[in-house]
Amino acid sequence: MLIEKTVRGFVEETFSASPVPGGGSVAALAGSLAAALSGMVANLTIGKKGYEEVQEEMKKILERAKELKDKLLEDIDKDSKAFDKVMDAFKMPKETDEEKERRKEAIQSALKEAALVPLEVAKDAEKIFEISEKVIVKGNKNAVTDGAVSCMMARTAILSALLNVKINLASIKDEEFVNKVSKEVAELEERAHKLEKEILTKVEL
Amino acid sequence: MLIEKTVRGFVEETFSASPVPGGGSVAALAGSLAAALSGMVANLTIGKKGYEEVQEEMKKILERAKELKDKLLEDIDKDSKAFDKVMDAFKMPKETDEEKERRKEAIQSALKEAALVPLEVAKDAEKIFEISEKVIVKGNKNAVTDGAVSCMMARTAILSALLNVKINLASIKDEEFVNKVSKEVAELEERAHKLEKEILTKVEL
Repeated sequence: MLIEKTVRGFVEETFSASPVPGGGSVAALAGSLAAALSGMVANLTIGKKGYEEVQEEMKKILERAKELKDKLLEDIDKDSKAFDKVMDAFKMPKETDEEKERRKEAIQSALKEAALVPLEVAKDAEKIFEISEKVIVKGNKNAVTDGAVSCMMARTAILSALLNVKINLASIKDEEFVNKVSKEVAELEERAHKLEKEILTKVEL
Repeated sequence: MLIEKTVRGFVEETFSASPVPGGGSVAALAGSLAAALSGMVANLTIGKKGYEEVQEEMKKILERAKELKDKLLEDIDKDSKAFDKVMDAFKMPKETDEEKERRKEAIQSALKEAALVPLEVAKDAEKIFEISEKVIVKGNKNAVTDGAVSCMMARTAILSALLNVKINLASIKDEEFVNKVSKEVAELEERAHKLEKEILTKVEL
């Protein structure tokens, strides 16, 4: 599993001539780090003098950050596996008409999954905005930059994941699927730009 | 060392109630991943049919990506150590006037280092823009999204590192130092927004 590699090993594996892990897995990792940073600020606020009024809220944020971090961590491997499936489908035999048909179907089905995994990553990373905003505004002031980095990493996780959705959509023939997902992509993209900007205005150094 | 932890372990350590690794180390990691992704696209272009004319350029990009990836990887630990030094200085004894003076000097010196490490991270991450642009425009078309993710991760590495510079500057008394560094920060910030936008317009899916 990619997430059991060392950080150094993961970066080296990204650098290597193998296409996985690539931008999709890096997007999920960025999302996971973003969730972890908002969780850290909540952790640094819980039990802290001067923050008595936000204790319950911080505990909820911590719980939410944990969920998102864990889910996005799993998506690092899920994205690379979805990519491998597409590659495997392309390698299927294509001698007879029947083989050709089976291969085409397998490719289309694998491409859909390879689009849906990063779409899910983008949707989960978007949920980080809400908690990063809260820790920036109400969390431990000494860790406000960590909340801001969380917000920016979430933005880049979303946009990076969406690029990976789009590149797969480009080869998918099912028009209804493509239209539906494209619409979601466009909305997520627009919100990512807008929300990051809005939240960062609340950072007071 | 942080980079010898597993990816999962690093994310968990970020999430924990300990302030390191925090946004500064995550910024360096984002930069290292950005460099690795541009390197990967160069790797996937070298020796590839249809890309004969850019072979020498891709080899240079690969070399550059390797250097930046390695440097930014080291900065993950360097940033956390610089933060620890600030914390250690704050814990110094402050009973006598002499102790107070020595503590004050140690804090100021540690804060300067804690500002200069992420400043270096931002400067190195900025160098990734040039190689990400080249791999997007001239590299393996199948990996164009990886070049784009590299560009966006570089942007977020820069802006995240710069926030960590600014938070430290806020406590530094040496006005000349603060003015000089603030000017660099403002310029780097402006370029990061501008260059990311420009480069991403060149991505053709």
